[in-house]
Amino acid sequence: MRKVEIIGYGTALPKKYVEFDGQRRYRASEDETQIMFAVEAANKALEKAKLKIADIDLIVSASAVGIQPIPCTAALIHEKIAIGTDIPAMDINTTCTSFVTAFDTISYLIDAGRYNRVLLVSSEISSLGLNKNQKESYELFGDGAAAVVLGKSNNNCCVMYSMQKTWSEGAHSTEIRGALSNMPPWMYDGTNAGEFMFDMKGRQILSIAAKKLPDMFEQFCKENKIGIDDVDVIVPHQASKALGMIMKKLNIPKEKYVDIVNQYGNMVSASIPFAMIKSIEDGRIRKGDTVMLVGTAAGLTSNILVFQY
Amino acid sequence: MRKVEIIGYGTALPKKYVEFDGQRRYRASEDETQIMFAVEAANKALEKAKLKIADIDLIVSASAVGIQPIPCTAALIHEKIAIGTDIPAMDINTTCTSFVTAFDTISYLIDAGRYNRVLLVSSEISSLGLNKNQKESYELFGDGAAAVVLGKSNNNCCVMYSMQKTWSEGAHSTEIRGALSNMPPWMYDGTNAGEFMFDMKGRQILSIAAKKLPDMFEQFCKENKIGIDDVDVIVPHQASKALGMIMKKLNIPKEKYVDIVNQYGNMVSASIPFAMIKSIEDGRIRKGDTVMLVGTAAGLTSNILVFQY
Repeated sequence: MRKVEIIGYGTALPKKYVEFDGQRRYRASEDETQIMFAVEAANKALEKAKLKIADIDLIVSASAVGIQPIPCTAALIHEKIAIGTDIPAMDINTTCTSFVTAFDTISYLIDAGRYNRVLLVSSEISSLGLNKNQKESYELFGDGAAAVVLGKSNNNCCVMYSMQKTWSEGAHSTEIRGALSNMPPWMYDGTNAGEFMFDMKGRQILSIAAKKLPDMFEQFCKENKIGIDDVDVIVPHQASKALGMIMKKLNIPKEKYVDIVNQYGNMVSASIPFAMIKSIEDGRIRKGDTVMLVGTAAGLTSNILVFQY
Repeated sequence: MRKVEIIGYGTALPKKYVEFDGQRRYRASEDETQIMFAVEAANKALEKAKLKIADIDLIVSASAVGIQPIPCTAALIHEKIAIGTDIPAMDINTTCTSFVTAFDTISYLIDAGRYNRVLLVSSEISSLGLNKNQKESYELFGDGAAAVVLGKSNNNCCVMYSMQKTWSEGAHSTEIRGALSNMPPWMYDGTNAGEFMFDMKGRQILSIAAKKLPDMFEQFCKENKIGIDDVDVIVPHQASKALGMIMKKLNIPKEKYVDIVNQYGNMVSASIPFAMIKSIEDGRIRKGDTVMLVGTAAGLTSNILVFQY
C-alpha cells in the first residue's frame, strides 16, 4: 500500500468534434496542438490542487506518442509551465496505459519520500496519425489531455494494488511503424503513407485480450484478496465499442464501470485519466471510494491498479 | 538507500566505425538496427547474470529515441527476447540520462519488493538522424547499446543517493523537431530535412550546464554529506570533447572520471551505461566501489546517482 493521494485534476479537449453514427470524437483544429492540451490540463490540475508550479517536485509525461523525438515530452511541458525552475521532468510510456503505469511507478517514489507532489500529464493528438482508409480506427480515436497532481497522503488515500503484464504476441496489433529509427521520416514518399499512420488490428487485439485478460484479472483478485464487490467504480480504458464485451468477460456488471466511448472515443493514454476525472467531477467517484483502473495498451500491455480515492 | 545490485551487464556495438581526426565513432551499417543492438546487449546481460528471460520480472527501455511511435520500445524488445511470457515492459525517457533516471526510479520498486529482477536496456542508432552539415554533432555521435540486470541486493550493494533537475531554458538546445506530433513525417519534403535531424547547439548547452551543474553538484554533495573523495569512480555522460572542461568546473580530478569520448563519442542514452560497463570489464570499477553516474541530457535535464557496486 502506497500512501498517495490525487490532490488535483484537470482535462482538456479540442474545441471541435466530429460524429460518426452519433459517436462523438473530439478532434484538434489546425491551431490546436498536443502541448496546448497538456498545458491546459496541467494548469487546471494545479488550480484544483490549489498549488503553484513551484510546489511540484516532479513533472511526468505519461503519453503514448511524443511531441518531438528529442527532448522528452515532459521537458517540453516543463518549458511551458515550469521554465526557470529546476523541477525534474521525465516520460513514462506504455502507450494507452501510460497513465496507469506512471501512477503505479511514481506511487513508490512518493511513498518512499523521494517526491512529495508530482504532476502527471497524459496528452494525445491521435487524429494527426489516423488513416482515413481504416474506418475502424479512424472513427474511434479522439484527442485531448488529462492531468493529475499526486501528493503524499496523510489519510486513507493510497494505491492499494497494481499489476502489469505485457504479451508481445500483440506487439504489432496496434502500431505506428514509421517516423522513428525503424523507418525514418525521409522514407516517407507519398506512396507509403499508411506506414506512418495508426494501424490497428482490432480483431487480433480483442482475441489476445479476451484470452489473456480474464486470467490476469483472476490472478490480480486472488493475489490481493479483492473482488469486484470491494470496488466502488471501475474505470476501464475506453478502448473501443467492444468495451462491454470485455467487461462481460471479466464478469464486471454494467453499473460498475464507466463507459464514455460514445461521447469521447479512445483518447489513447488520456483515456483512462480523462474517464476517471469525468467520474470524479460527475460525483460518481467520491472521496473514500475504492477505484479500479484497468486497460490494455499497444504492446500488448495490460494494467490493473486499485486505489482509494 | 535502496538495496539494489547490478547482477549482469552487456554492451553492443556496430561492426564498423568511422574516424574523425583520430576520434572513433561506431556507426550502424544498413543491415544493423536499434533493436539488434538492444537484443545483443540484453542477452549478454542475462548471460552475465546467469539468468534466463523467465527470471526477469520487468523489462525497461531507457532510450532517447524509440524504434516506432507505437508501441513503446520495451514492448518491441520484449517481442524479440520474451515473447510468450507476460513480463511487463515499459519505457522511461529523459533522453541522454534515461538510463540513470530508470536506474534511480526502478530502484524504489525493487527496494519495495514490487520487482526482483529488472532488465534495463539503452539502445541508440543516432547516426540515422545526424546532419552532415552540422560538423559538431555529425562527428560526435556513435551507435550502440548497453543493458544491465538489476536485482534486490542481500549485501552492501545499493543506490545511495540520487538527484534529477530539469532546466527547460535548454529545451531546444538539443533536439529533433520533426517526426512526431510537432511536425509529422508527411511534412518532410526534402527541403526541410534539417527539421527531422539532430540539431545541437553545443555552446548553448555548455553555457547552461556550466552555470547550473556546479550548483547542483554542490547541493547534491552537501545534502548527502558526500565528497569527491568518498567516490571511487565517476562515470560521466560522454557528452562531448568538452567533458574535461565540465569535470574541471566540478573540481573532479582527471584520474577520478571515465573519459572514452575519443574511442566511442556520445552514444546518447547508451553512453553512461556503456562507459560504466566498460569500466567494470576493465577492472576500473570493482565490487564494493562507490560509483557516481552524472550527466546532462536534452531537456535540459541533469542526473546524479551514487551507488555501491
